[in-house]
Amino acid sequence: MSKMPNTPDVLISEVGPRDGLQSVKATMPTADKFRWIDALVAAGLREIEVCSFVPAKHLPQMADAAEVVRHALTHRGVTVMALVPNLRGAEAALKAGVHKLTIPVSASAAHSMANVRKTREEMMEEVRAIVRLRDQIAPGVKIEAGISTAFGCTIQGEVTDEDVVWTAAGCIEAGAEEAGLSDTTGMANPAQVRRLFNKVRAAIGDKTGAAHMHNTRGLGLANCLAAYDVGVRTFDASLGGLGGCPYAPGASGNVVTEDLVFMFEAMGVTTGVDIEKIIAARAPLMAGLPGEPIYGMTPEAGLPKGWKQTARTA
Amino acid sequence: MSKMPNTPDVLISEVGPRDGLQSVKATMPTADKFRWIDALVAAGLREIEVCSFVPAKHLPQMADAAEVVRHALTHRGVTVMALVPNLRGAEAALKAGVHKLTIPVSASAAHSMANVRKTREEMMEEVRAIVRLRDQIAPGVKIEAGISTAFGCTIQGEVTDEDVVWTAAGCIEAGAEEAGLSDTTGMANPAQVRRLFNKVRAAIGDKTGAAHMHNTRGLGLANCLAAYDVGVRTFDASLGGLGGCPYAPGASGNVVTEDLVFMFEAMGVTTGVDIEKIIAARAPLMAGLPGEPIYGMTPEAGLPKGWKQTARTA
Repeated sequence: MSKMPNTPDVLISEVGPRDGLQSVKATMPTADKFRWIDALVAAGLREIEVCSFVPAKHLPQMADAAEVVRHALTHRGVTVMALVPNLRGAEAALKAGVHKLTIPVSASAAHSMANVRKTREEMMEEVRAIVRLRDQIAPGVKIEAGISTAFGCTIQGEVTDEDVVWTAAGCIEAGAEEAGLSDTTGMANPAQVRRLFNKVRAAIGDKTGAAHMHNTRGLGLANCLAAYDVGVRTFDASLGGLGGCPYAPGASGNVVTEDLVFMFEAMGVTTGVDIEKIIAARAPLMAGLPGEPIYGMTPEAGLPKGWKQTARTA
Repeated sequence: MSKMPNTPDVLISEVGPRDGLQSVKATMPTADKFRWIDALVAAGLREIEVCSFVPAKHLPQMADAAEVVRHALTHRGVTVMALVPNLRGAEAALKAGVHKLTIPVSASAAHSMANVRKTREEMMEEVRAIVRLRDQIAPGVKIEAGISTAFGCTIQGEVTDEDVVWTAAGCIEAGAEEAGLSDTTGMANPAQVRRLFNKVRAAIGDKTGAAHMHNTRGLGLANCLAAYDVGVRTFDASLGGLGGCPYAPGASGNVVTEDLVFMFEAMGVTTGVDIEKIIAARAPLMAGLPGEPIYGMTPEAGLPKGWKQTARTA
């Protein structure tokens, strides 16, 4: 992997404003979303999934999606992402001016039906349609497929490696630029993470995208480490660990951005994120969602005595 | 590493009855300790640090140490360990009949003085004296040095790799059979864990002992994975994450046994511990320490749908 001089070693893709906010009952006021996103950018995050484009009757928390995108776009150097479940959402997102779309495609047939009422094949056709639309109206925009339930499903149980590779390859064949793997249900383990990312990379090469890990059973950081070990360099995480998947019963808990940044920086793997500023970004999150519990061991314990974030760049 | 047929791949060394109970204010009644230890053994744990031998005026929680050892010894096939900070404690432990002693020796000069009011060199002399006593009165007993503050110190800050290797090698030279590395202060990161275990192994070979990791900043399991990757096969953990180091201000949180067992078993790395029975062992712990908070993501989330513990043995 080649990278620009001064480019951090890994990319932390913050999903809190989308994944976090759509998982809680309360709706964060738009002005609070702006302040929170501003704080995330100030901490050095270079990719933020700021919203999802879904009907407001299903997710009132995202009714201001276009407005949030427009605000995020005022920040230079930040990739503004949105999640879209279908062509209609993609059209709205592209019109709002996002830089990157992420489309969830389940590797589990049962989860696909439960989550979006489409078969996996129908979702790949949706990806193809979104790619076609993108080519017509916003050719610079990147499209990522997020392969959900890649490590197991709370509905059907086990998901085979073959199903995951097949789904990822199918999305790339449909025209997506990247396919990442999501532990939607918190069932991943480090051996599986290494094995699956290796298999997916064997199939789609450097179109292999982010690791989206959950901390449901406490293995979130260990799974990120495992993914890093096999060459993954983009990691989804959520400030305060906010969010999870509302359609996967019993699953909860994104990897905490603050803890993930601390782990990598402590290892000497640069993230471009200032650890103190990312901890400070919890304040606007909490202000916008009063009473909502947030997580994070590093913020609670504080930084180790004498610990300094290395300024090391490539 | 050769191992017996049917021996699990890794050894989980449960430290809760010592490390956990000496970190909480309440004293667990002796009968409750017995019930808890019985449940730990029933779950398949083969090594348990059941107590420390220290003056009761300092640690009233451990006043029944000899009695607890005698009870633990009624279980066949379990290595009964005790922590001893000095010769006097070692003598009491050896007379009580323990199978294995662990002696904490700080790699940090400042922590050594604060914790046991001895220099590191004086602690190595203590190890030598304990080895001599062991040779005289209980030659079958194994002696492990637990190198504390191996990954950083809340008092002096950084601890150099050289200090850690020097301390570990000094303890082996003094006659200890093993030296393990303890993240007393929760400052370890996976890169450091791999580097330090490799350096210690280069110095003392297969006398390299357990990884004793804390979850202070959420990296406990990632650090255990890192240690496993470089050949460590013994891991300290505490049921419910009980305990930490009372003399390292701000540090808390042992690795949770339940989560560690889940991680390894999910990876196909056998522990010999039954996941459902180890989760059930939380009941006698909670009964003996009413109101004390305990941790564990796997017990809270439950096992994944369709998840089966592999019966795989070597």
